[in-house]
Amino acid sequence: MAGVVTASMPVFIVENKTQGNFAYCTMNEGLGNVLRFGAYGDDVIKHLKWMEKTLYPVMKQALEIYGPIDLKTMIAQAAQMGDEVHNRNKAATSLFIREIASSIVKTDASKEDQVAVFDFLNSNDHFFLNLSMPASKSAMDPVGKVKHSTIVYTMARNGTEFGIRVAALGDRWFTGPAAIIDGLYFPGYSTDDANPDIGDSCITETYGIGGFAMATAPAIVQFVGGTPQDAVNYTTSMYEITLEESTIYKMPPMNFRGTPTGIDIRLVVETQILPVINTGIASKHAGVGQVGAGIVNPPMNCFTDALEAYVELLESEGMLG
Amino acid sequence: MAGVVTASMPVFIVENKTQGNFAYCTMNEGLGNVLRFGAYGDDVIKHLKWMEKTLYPVMKQALEIYGPIDLKTMIAQAAQMGDEVHNRNKAATSLFIREIASSIVKTDASKEDQVAVFDFLNSNDHFFLNLSMPASKSAMDPVGKVKHSTIVYTMARNGTEFGIRVAALGDRWFTGPAAIIDGLYFPGYSTDDANPDIGDSCITETYGIGGFAMATAPAIVQFVGGTPQDAVNYTTSMYEITLEESTIYKMPPMNFRGTPTGIDIRLVVETQILPVINTGIASKHAGVGQVGAGIVNPPMNCFTDALEAYVELLESEGMLG
Repeated sequence: MAGVVTASMPVFIVENKTQGNFAYCTMNEGLGNVLRFGAYGDDVIKHLKWMEKTLYPVMKQALEIYGPIDLKTMIAQAAQMGDEVHNRNKAATSLFIREIASSIVKTDASKEDQVAVFDFLNSNDHFFLNLSMPASKSAMDPVGKVKHSTIVYTMARNGTEFGIRVAALGDRWFTGPAAIIDGLYFPGYSTDDANPDIGDSCITETYGIGGFAMATAPAIVQFVGGTPQDAVNYTTSMYEITLEESTIYKMPPMNFRGTPTGIDIRLVVETQILPVINTGIASKHAGVGQVGAGIVNPPMNCFTDALEAYVELLESEGMLG
Repeated sequence: MAGVVTASMPVFIVENKTQGNFAYCTMNEGLGNVLRFGAYGDDVIKHLKWMEKTLYPVMKQALEIYGPIDLKTMIAQAAQMGDEVHNRNKAATSLFIREIASSIVKTDASKEDQVAVFDFLNSNDHFFLNLSMPASKSAMDPVGKVKHSTIVYTMARNGTEFGIRVAALGDRWFTGPAAIIDGLYFPGYSTDDANPDIGDSCITETYGIGGFAMATAPAIVQFVGGTPQDAVNYTTSMYEITLEESTIYKMPPMNFRGTPTGIDIRLVVETQILPVINTGIASKHAGVGQVGAGIVNPPMNCFTDALEAYVELLESEGMLG
């Protein structure tokens, strides 16, 4: 008779207040030598154990004391402070820390544990990424339920394939080969170490932030490469493949224009412009972790295949002449 | 026989590590109804008493625990996060909070007082202003000792006159009438309420940040008026009247160009371009406090008078033909 082991995984719980759905995410471990990029050495395990025993219980209680945090407002502020909240989260992480600080003090955690939590948060500029991702997912999941919509509601990669899902086409994935990321490497690493594109963080671009909001985060080019003008150009080109401009996330360097949001497969195929994604680079060698960050695109066939499937759907429903 | 009352005024102590001189500043009370802008009602006094009894002792101990904070690095980071650290200090204040947080927890202050300190810091986006001002002053005071230099090392206003001091001309002030500030008003106030330009905060512009770094802080136009393009134009024009570009404070929207620094009276008179100052607007009515924020210039005669005095100085020293 087999035993069943149940384990609970601590996660942020993010609610889409308008639609009532939820998304979830673990807390961000930091950069470099971390599990989410494939590192699993003793120091990785030790750090995860510290997160389990100290960080998670303190944050759980602090968040209970604080109550719900308005992530939309926090992202909107960060977007006016040089973050695109995918690969640059320095402002959003800072805003989160100052907002939650007094609630951390109010927990019954020891002074030593509170100090360790504050020092960890301060050491990790990417802490907010694991809030911007579920915020994006909670916003996009309901989009996936809009019948006949040609909007992309998921983009994700597994290190081998890149896949998208389109609202009209339900849970079906349209995939192509994952690309090698064009970017900057941490000291000691190069393109030779790079695994093809991996991870589900590009839910931020699907939502219209991240690479789509690069114009508001010119300093990010120090992390992902390119120039501030490239950042403006990336954002400007994303208006060509999206249906709307955000009414919440405004970009001061773009004269407070809203971020481009709502990738339409018809526009991608028509313009041949691919979504721009800011992302981390994982090592292709087991156990190493993150080795850099840069910019990548999905394969075009994801969009052409999806558009063909969309035409078939309309035909099957007798909606095309 | 008269008694002598001694009182100590708590201040930040800022050291210019290179030159060994110091500058000092109280902690920032916040916006609006505050003593530094002329408000003195019961709530102002009550808040100052709280600062005396709670904020200052906690911060004093926290800073002792932390040790010296590198303000130059902090300002450089904030300048990449949309602050010009005169009228926009949201990023710098956030960076300060996260940096000092664990040291606040380490103090022997009660949990209640620590909570109050964190909540106050989080409520006051301008807290860092009272660090950027003494940082600027500690940098500029030694400039005032450079013989025969035409660089402006002080600009300040008293609500009636605007004055500058120039290195070659020592402690002598060159003054003209303080102007009315062109800006945005808090709800319920208008130009009719405005006092002419007042305060010594424009030491930041003297140092080459504040209005001189507006291009890196496009979101500030929501507070001081104008457009993001105006902000870029202001910074661009300041290169015309300054001798150097900062090697530390880089502006991502200007392709990481350094901020214009070192106002030269010769260039101001030659180009007829006046320094651009971001500043708060004080009410002309006693007891009200700050009523808005905007942009102002010094009177041109400060610079022409100083240049004439400089010529006289050179003549008196036999340095002119």
